[in-house]
Amino acid sequence: MQLHKRDVVDVATSLLDDYGMADLSMRRLARELNVSPGALYWHFANKQQLLGAVADRVLTAVDTASADPGDWQLGIGSLCTQLRDALLSHTDGAELVSASFAAGQSRAMGEVLGRLSAAAREAGVGSTQAELAARTIVYYVLGFTADEQSRLQWDAAGADLVETVWDEDPSARFAFGLRLLISGISVHSRSDA
Amino acid sequence: MQLHKRDVVDVATSLLDDYGMADLSMRRLARELNVSPGALYWHFANKQQLLGAVADRVLTAVDTASADPGDWQLGIGSLCTQLRDALLSHTDGAELVSASFAAGQSRAMGEVLGRLSAAAREAGVGSTQAELAARTIVYYVLGFTADEQSRLQWDAAGADLVETVWDEDPSARFAFGLRLLISGISVHSRSDA
Repeated sequence: MQLHKRDVVDVATSLLDDYGMADLSMRRLARELNVSPGALYWHFANKQQLLGAVADRVLTAVDTASADPGDWQLGIGSLCTQLRDALLSHTDGAELVSASFAAGQSRAMGEVLGRLSAAAREAGVGSTQAELAARTIVYYVLGFTADEQSRLQWDAAGADLVETVWDEDPSARFAFGLRLLISGISVHSRSDA
Repeated sequence: MQLHKRDVVDVATSLLDDYGMADLSMRRLARELNVSPGALYWHFANKQQLLGAVADRVLTAVDTASADPGDWQLGIGSLCTQLRDALLSHTDGAELVSASFAAGQSRAMGEVLGRLSAAAREAGVGSTQAELAARTIVYYVLGFTADEQSRLQWDAAGADLVETVWDEDPSARFAFGLRLLISGISVHSRSDA
């Protein structure tokens, strides 16, 4: 039976959801697919490439084209909200996507970065600084969501957490940080002009 | 021979530097200290507490009191620069401290958060929003540094990375994101006033 790349990513994503990122190994994936580990390397040169493909699967729910080109602030807000939702909908989603983003292995995160850079340019930020601004937003979204997800998962595991301001509506907290970043971009676009 | 908590943290920090966070287990630590795993639980109720103590060791280089109370912008810049330097000086430092921060297990990160909240209040931000602003800065610093450190470690391991704007001076890039956040805080403090 032929092993399709799409099926490998399907099963890898199920393993991620069921067991988490630490237990997503090439060996386990091969066993689950009932193939030799070598068969996986036909589709993926290494584990990083596989994780990148799973990250892209996690991010299929993010529609970069939906960002409103007429209003850069709404565009950033809409894209980042979709990104957070997608990360939270898979076990260890934020950790997986952070690792793949850092390794330059996620095509979808490249598109998100491109869209955020475009929004910063629409705001009037110069093009080099626009990519830095986009990355600052991405670090915030990934950092916030990884933290939120760790807490959700530890909470589900019954761990005792120190309770703080975190108890408040996480979506409102997430939006506040985004507003801070958007305000910062507005200031820089004015000072660049 | 009595097992001192300080010695346990010393050896755990060495294991972190030599083998990384994934290989820092209670079992391995006990073997290295030549004690039974049970002996470690005298000092640490669980692995999360141990990781928190190692995180605090990593952060001893961060002097929260050094933040200039007369100028909140310089204070934030100085504290975040020290934080990034401390994280980069230990293998997987950013990942370890992020995990401990999310679990509420790092006393030192609590102090950093408190100092950043104080800086935001000095800027004129209300106290609830000041802690959210402080957390936004922390997510940025941890996200940026975890990404930088992954790249440095993958680079050292000879992995091929997609080269981008990342090639530029990382300290200048780090400072740009901080300026963006500081500008955002300035805007919010004015709008709160």
